[in-house]
Amino acid sequence: MENRWETTRTEAFSDGVFAIAITLLVLDLSVPLRDFDNLWRGIVHQWPSYLGFATSFITIGGVWLAHHGVFRRLRYADNAVMRLNLLLLMAVSFLPFPTKLVAEAVREPDAERVAVIFYGVSLLTIQVLFSVLWGTVARNRELLRPEVTEQEIEAIVLAAAPNIGLFVGITALAVVAPRAAAIGYLVIAVISVLRVRGDEPSQTAQPA
Amino acid sequence: MENRWETTRTEAFSDGVFAIAITLLVLDLSVPLRDFDNLWRGIVHQWPSYLGFATSFITIGGVWLAHHGVFRRLRYADNAVMRLNLLLLMAVSFLPFPTKLVAEAVREPDAERVAVIFYGVSLLTIQVLFSVLWGTVARNRELLRPEVTEQEIEAIVLAAAPNIGLFVGITALAVVAPRAAAIGYLVIAVISVLRVRGDEPSQTAQPA
Amino acid sequence: MENRWETTRTEAFSDGVFAIAITLLVLDLSVPLRDFDNLWRGIVHQWPSYLGFATSFITIGGVWLAHHGVFRRLRYADNAVMRLNLLLLMAVSFLPFPTKLVAEAVREPDAERVAVIFYGVSLLTIQVLFSVLWGTVARNRELLRPEVTEQEIEAIVLAAAPNIGLFVGITALAVVAPRAAAIGYLVIAVISVLRVRGDEPSQTAQPA
Amino acid sequence: MENRWETTRTEAFSDGVFAIAITLLVLDLSVPLRDFDNLWRGIVHQWPSYLGFATSFITIGGVWLAHHGVFRRLRYADNAVMRLNLLLLMAVSFLPFPTKLVAEAVREPDAERVAVIFYGVSLLTIQVLFSVLWGTVARNRELLRPEVTEQEIEAIVLAAAPNIGLFVGITALAVVAPRAAAIGYLVIAVISVLRVRGDEPSQTAQPA
Repeated sequence: MENRWETTRTEAFSDGVFAIAITLLVLDLSVPLRDFDNLWRGIVHQWPSYLGFATSFITIGGVWLAHHGVFRRLRYADNAVMRLNLLLLMAVSFLPFPTKLVAEAVREPDAERVAVIFYGVSLLTIQVLFSVLWGTVARNRELLRPEVTEQEIEAIVLAAAPNIGLFVGITALAVVAPRAAAIGYLVIAVISVLRVRGDEPSQTAQPA
Repeated sequence: MENRWETTRTEAFSDGVFAIAITLLVLDLSVPLRDFDNLWRGIVHQWPSYLGFATSFITIGGVWLAHHGVFRRLRYADNAVMRLNLLLLMAVSFLPFPTKLVAEAVREPDAERVAVIFYGVSLLTIQVLFSVLWGTVARNRELLRPEVTEQEIEAIVLAAAPNIGLFVGITALAVVAPRAAAIGYLVIAVISVLRVRGDEPSQTAQPA
Repeated sequence: MENRWETTRTEAFSDGVFAIAITLLVLDLSVPLRDFDNLWRGIVHQWPSYLGFATSFITIGGVWLAHHGVFRRLRYADNAVMRLNLLLLMAVSFLPFPTKLVAEAVREPDAERVAVIFYGVSLLTIQVLFSVLWGTVARNRELLRPEVTEQEIEAIVLAAAPNIGLFVGITALAVVAPRAAAIGYLVIAVISVLRVRGDEPSQTAQPA
Repeated sequence: MENRWETTRTEAFSDGVFAIAITLLVLDLSVPLRDFDNLWRGIVHQWPSYLGFATSFITIGGVWLAHHGVFRRLRYADNAVMRLNLLLLMAVSFLPFPTKLVAEAVREPDAERVAVIFYGVSLLTIQVLFSVLWGTVARNRELLRPEVTEQEIEAIVLAAAPNIGLFVGITALAVVAPRAAAIGYLVIAVISVLRVRGDEPSQTAQPA
């Protein structure tokens, strides 16, 4: 079965998509010209844009760190991993769209509720696809480098699971309190980045 | 004859163009502000944009996988391969334009027909350039790594050929039924991604 | 403690963000169609955009050179470095927004003052994050390659410090003379690029 | 003197800028909604945009090929090369702006003349910066790999020189015949790509 892919070029392509999606977020920041007669107020008035920028940036940054954690443990990828990775990248590169909607909708209560829920579902999709990607790897032990321990595999599963629960919970909260939910997504993103871990010293190739 | 190029930097540059073209597609997604009083309906109303986003994303993803399949079999590139690769990248980076046209034209029957045909011709151009690129490599056996078999070369030719037929057929269908054709392009893209194969286990450098 | 990250993929991701942020700046250059009846004047009239483009391009280029200088001295990164690097990339990818504001505000004295101060604070944030990143590395000698000397560590600290003072000073100047300050930022950027240094010949791996 | 830079990361960063600048060109392609009642005519009507897209794409592609030719001959870069490379990247990433102007101005004779001259000066700047970059390398023989011959150095100088003459000549032509000049730039770009050469077989590391 022709089913092996070395991972270097896949990492390069994925890094490109992550880097571009994260950097395109700035294109949605702007101050309308009519607010230039009091520009400080105009800049401050755009706080929902900055909240969306920060949340999406940190979320994508956290997914990148976690993606890095998966691929550096792979010996090679198989067809299923390649396809799931492509789906994950599609969900990540979609994120600037709901980010923009949240910023645009934030001053109309009804639209705000919808936009925040839509944003939450997009985040949830990214998280689920990441978990499925890792689950696929974890079930096919042959894809992993020999030095990866069962304990590490479990740790990554356990790190992803609570996020799914949190995204569902906060998206439910968005129905009644969309602004609290929007801040909740930022908090999850920050926690995700803080929770990602590097390697044990013994696993680094370079001498200490 | 000065006619050899090592492939590492060409792969990096190509990966960059593929990653950017695939990620720029999101810039064409938006909901007009007048639809914010019923944002769910406004989001759903944009389905042609999502269809275009998904089709172009998966098409470019499939071309990237196939491109990866070509370049990992190359020992080095020659001038002809470098120029054809540049033409292929030009066609790929052009794709966001017809994608946008399809999404914008979808509510006006006449424009829809034209936009879908134009989109199909753009996809066909990418596929033809890819086939010419591979044909150039296949005719110059010296460019390929020694371990590449005649069977593999044939397999890649055979994988590309039906796509050209399908693109011609579906683009003809677009004259009478543009929406069916639009969905047809998505189906081809998904099939292309599912059909791309990795390497035989025996060909990977790393120990099993 | 799982706290080690090899740096190759982090450099690739960071290079991606720097390259995209620096290239997106061109999207804010345009001449309004009403100025096309005298296009030379229209092009010249956009000088504030070019000043912003050049200043932000050279600033990001200088940060990239300095970032390169940090990461090529690292043996590996730890969790703190990874997080600070993500914050630094967030500040860099934010820069096109204040750049656009400066160009848009330049013909209204009040708005101009605000925009230039906001731009200066953004530059200052980048510089402070860079200094904190390097300070974190310098305090944890184990992260550095063994051949890095104390003298080199000091030199990088000393190169970053005056910039922070200059950004504060010029941003204060912006309150009374925003245009002079805008030119001041360009001068700092050029000086920063001229001040970044490569390695000693003895440190290069390749034979002389 | 601290004056050495290994070239890997500089190539990666430059590849990123080239890939993004070349891919951003598509963002300027669009058909105004008023032309959707006859979309074929609307698509054809945009021919100046396609001419600009193709010319700038092939020009940047040619500069990338030539840049590749320079950097693969370098043993390491010095500070002057790093700064000139940054200036070259600035000129390349600026090119989408005059490209857009040409497409917008093409239906107003006076504006068209100005836009085409401005575009030509931008191309000339890129070419001059490239020649200065290569001249700096050629004068500092120590930067080059030992196997690079005087003949190769001369060949690259000679390949760049006529382009500068051509850009000056065609830009002069633009004063009286801007459209002919616009086509002239495309022809130069195609010739440049066809003229770039790979390595001699004997210089490739891999066995024949």
